[in-house]
Parts: sequence; structure tokens; C-alpha cells
Amino acid sequence: MQLYSFFNSSTSYRVRIALALKGLAFDTIPVNIRVGEHRAQPYVDEVNASATVPALVDGDVSLGQSLAIIDYLDAKYPQSRLVPQDIEARARVLELSMLISCDIHPVNNLRILKYLQGPLALSAEQKDAWYRHWVAEGMAGVERLLVKYGHGAWCFGDTPTLADVCLIPQIANAQRMGCDLSAYPRAMAVFAQAETHPAFLAAAPNRQPDYSV
Amino acid sequence: MQLYSFFNSSTSYRVRIALALKGLAFDTIPVNIRVGEHRAQPYVDEVNASATVPALVDGDVSLGQSLAIIDYLDAKYPQSRLVPQDIEARARVLELSMLISCDIHPVNNLRILKYLQGPLALSAEQKDAWYRHWVAEGMAGVERLLVKYGHGAWCFGDTPTLADVCLIPQIANAQRMGCDLSAYPRAMAVFAQAETHPAFLAAAPNRQPDYSV
Repeated sequence: MQLYSFFNSSTSYRVRIALALKGLAFDTIPVNIRVGEHRAQPYVDEVNASATVPALVDGDVSLGQSLAIIDYLDAKYPQSRLVPQDIEARARVLELSMLISCDIHPVNNLRILKYLQGPLALSAEQKDAWYRHWVAEGMAGVERLLVKYGHGAWCFGDTPTLADVCLIPQIANAQRMGCDLSAYPRAMAVFAQAETHPAFLAAAPNRQPDYSV
Repeated sequence: MQLYSFFNSSTSYRVRIALALKGLAFDTIPVNIRVGEHRAQPYVDEVNASATVPALVDGDVSLGQSLAIIDYLDAKYPQSRLVPQDIEARARVLELSMLISCDIHPVNNLRILKYLQGPLALSAEQKDAWYRHWVAEGMAGVERLLVKYGHGAWCFGDTPTLADVCLIPQIANAQRMGCDLSAYPRAMAVFAQAETHPAFLAAAPNRQPDYSV
């Protein structure tokens, strides 16, 4: 299995956590999104038509989009299942995962920040305020969901699920960008839990072959 | 079943299509996101901790996030299944759905456009260019995926899937915003197909009780 990944991409980070939790071996193929390698050929035509990272190649299957990849892994390699099968438990895990993956992450990813400072010529202060604004909006929702429905050491229970797989990279990014996260104690308790877990540690940006400061 | 919905919200539109395809009756409870009703109490505490539309209430279950809602409907009401069970077919449907739901829709939704013109004080021209830029980026990926893996009258085969449920509202929005969509003939053929389908027609913004011009 090959994972096309960028060390600092939080969607790549999600898939790395999922692979590590499932104990699946893979080769990392770095794609430097800072210099646009994800938009170059033959990557777009042959590996990932979405022109993003990550992408997974597993035998004949070549797949983009982190959540589609993780769903595929969960179906094909069901050990350490990340999305529960019980209908309501599943709904809660997906609700939190989608809040992070649709409402927080996309508006703060690299291409958006580049557009703010490039074509829109905004200042670094305006870009940082933008980032913090969407983190605060989204994390308030995450915390409400966790307080209302969460339980156990992880988001939903005593084993990690897709919700944790999405939450940890999002918090790591928010910390890197200097966001104040003190208003989300339940989310931060899950983050602290992940900092003791070998799969989450192995998937972290600073453990990747393409890591740079 | 009750659906908290805004007529012009494309994530609400997705869920309306899914409910119609499955033949499930529901009451629409309008939430006017233009005046912030999605952020008001008791909606946030009692119905949808995400503070967004849509939200579904089905008996004791109250759920936010359109893709989590549709997954829940697919599990609980499996007639007219929207996400295939075959591993690879499922992966393709989710890949396209996530490309739309994570890479296109979130960066162009109402709250983002309001922030561009409010706190960032950008012009209408800059906002429109932003909108068109992300539609063009994302739809190019959609078209590549459809050309590479799509088949049949719909995105993936001869019955609608989640991919179509996500694609149609996205194209409807892009048309409303005046985007040039001529570069995506495969996607537009699916859109034309949906314009003949009663479930897609019934779910359209102009057929909703809260519709206004």
C-alpha cells in the first residue's frame, strides 16, 4: 500500500492515523503541496483526480479524499473499526467527523490561506484572524457535541473512532496556528489522550519522512 | 420525521433529495440562516449542536450534518440505497461526494461569503471571483472523476447515489451564481438527468415552503 501524503496536511494525517490504528504497513510517497506537486502530472491523471493529498493506492485501487479512503480501509480491513456499525453510534461519530471535515478544515487549509494572501492581498493579521474565527466557530460545535453525546476516554467511548481521527489533526493545526483552545476542555482531554497513543504519535507530522521545519 | 431546513441551503437540499428518493414523509421546519436562526436557542441546544442547517429529528434521534444524516437514513431506511455496499463502488461514490462536500461547498457557503463582505470588506466582484475560483477548481476534479470512473445516466450507474445527491445542489448553486459550467459536460449531463426526476424536483429550493426570491 502506498500513501501519497504531505507531512503537514491534516487530511493526510487522518489517513496515517487510520492506517496506524489498523496496523497496516504502507510506504509514504511525499507530495509537497507547498510547491504544487499535488496539481502536477502524472499525479492528477494517474493517482488522484481530486488533485489533493492524500491519496491511497492499494493494489488496483487508487483513491483520493481522506474520508473516502478511511471508509474504504474500514470496509476492507475491518480490524480496529473506526466507524461503528450500530446506527446511532455511527451517526454520532459521523456527525462530529463531518463538522470537523466540512465546517472547519476546508476553510482553513493551505490553498485558502494562500488565496487570502495572494489574490486578495490580505495581511498576515487578517489571515490569522480568519483562521481563528473558523476554528472558534467549529470547535464550539465540537465541544457542544462532545458534552452532549461524548463519553469515555476518546470522543465516543474507550476506543478511537473516526471522530478522534479527525479531531486530533484539527487540534494540532489549531495549536500550531496559536489558537486559544481553553474553551474546549472535553476536546482537549481527548487530545491529551491521543498524545499517549502510539498510532497517533506515529502519524504525527514530525514523524514523517518529508518533515521539515 | 422533521427536517430543519433552509430552502436555499445546498446541504438541506441534499437531505431533501435523499428523503424524497427513499419515499420518506417529513415535515419541513424552516430555519432562516440569513437572519441567524441556526445560531439561536433553543435550536442549538435542543436540535443541532453544530448550529447549522440541516438537522433531522427522527423519533429520539436529533442529528446535524447532511452527510451524517444521509448515512443514518441509508442505514435505517435502506430502500433506494444511496451509498453502495460493494467496497470499490462505495469508495468511488464517497470520493466524489467528499470532493464536493469538503473541497467545494464549505468555502462558498453563506457564512463564508458574509465574512468576505463583512469583516474583510471585499467587493462584490472579489466575492464573486472567489466563488467562481473554488467552483472551477472543484468541478474540474469532479469532471475528471466522472470521466475516469463514472458510467450510466447518473454519476455512477443507472440509479442515483450520494454522489448525485451532492452534485445536483452544487451545480444549481453554481448556476445561480452565474458560473460558466461548459467545461464539465459529464457533470452537466447528470444535472440534466436530475431535472427529469421527481425526487430531485420535489427537493428543489423553489418547491420549499420557505422559498422566497
